[in-house]
Amino acid sequence: MSVAPVKFQARKTIEQVEEGNDLAPKFDDRGLITVVTTDADSGEVLMQGYMNAEALQLTIATGEAHYWSRSRQVLWHKGATSGLVQRVIEIRIDDDQDAVWLRVAVAAGTHCEPASCHVGYHSCFYRTVELKTGKIIYAEKEKTFDPEVVYGNAL
Amino acid sequence: MSVAPVKFQARKTIEQVEEGNDLAPKFDDRGLITVVTTDADSGEVLMQGYMNAEALQLTIATGEAHYWSRSRQVLWHKGATSGLVQRVIEIRIDDDQDAVWLRVAVAAGTHCEPASCHVGYHSCFYRTVELKTGKIIYAEKEKTFDPEVVYGNAL
Repeated sequence: MSVAPVKFQARKTIEQVEEGNDLAPKFDDRGLITVVTTDADSGEVLMQGYMNAEALQLTIATGEAHYWSRSRQVLWHKGATSGLVQRVIEIRIDDDQDAVWLRVAVAAGTHCEPASCHVGYHSCFYRTVELKTGKIIYAEKEKTFDPEVVYGNAL
Repeated sequence: MSVAPVKFQARKTIEQVEEGNDLAPKFDDRGLITVVTTDADSGEVLMQGYMNAEALQLTIATGEAHYWSRSRQVLWHKGATSGLVQRVIEIRIDDDQDAVWLRVAVAAGTHCEPASCHVGYHSCFYRTVELKTGKIIYAEKEKTFDPEVVYGNAL
């Protein structure tokens, strides 16, 4: 897809970054910025990931979530394999511009209901850590899809 | 505060970490795990931060959010200065256990309404990045508190 890349501004002062109108994201020493993605309707956190500059530019330009896959070291258009595309409703950026919040609507997949986690659950955060004990409890009782059917060998 | 630390398990296999019942968090090469904190009522993302093992253990044990401050390099009991304590309603952990989601109720501060951002806004994510253009738009029109009144020289 050919889109004009959004230009990022140079970071100059705390005031400019925190209280100004410049988009001046801070990428870490790996060239990445952290991203939290929530379901725009429910507020549920679906996943936590990373973007490089190109992924952030493509997300802004196309309105579909793009990430940087640290495990595969590639630009990752979420849903390209599974059909589970994340349509961006809103992008927020935090005070020091080193974190992005995406509010998304998740499409149904080619073979399943809307979901975001490669393990098969709706959210990647399908488990609760019990207060005081640290015991793991499954917040999602059943998987939304079978990863083998949706991803085959593409995982 | 004296509390028995919650024990973390060793990470052995993908199946154990993703589909088991062991709490086996993955701390990165700085000893940190990424944390996203949302308002338990509204679903709004309040902040993105980090915990070391001690901060995660204290959060589980006490039910109040503790972080690791990367800028100050100290354990950080959120609200210790401002009164804006985050009471944890639920802790979730993601598939590969390298990210934590806290659902919290924010207390009113000593000098202000409930808020979470040191700049004075309710959420650290007080600005929207407009789709297609990348233009910054203020989602929160007014600050919830005056940082100088709440923090004085403690920032």
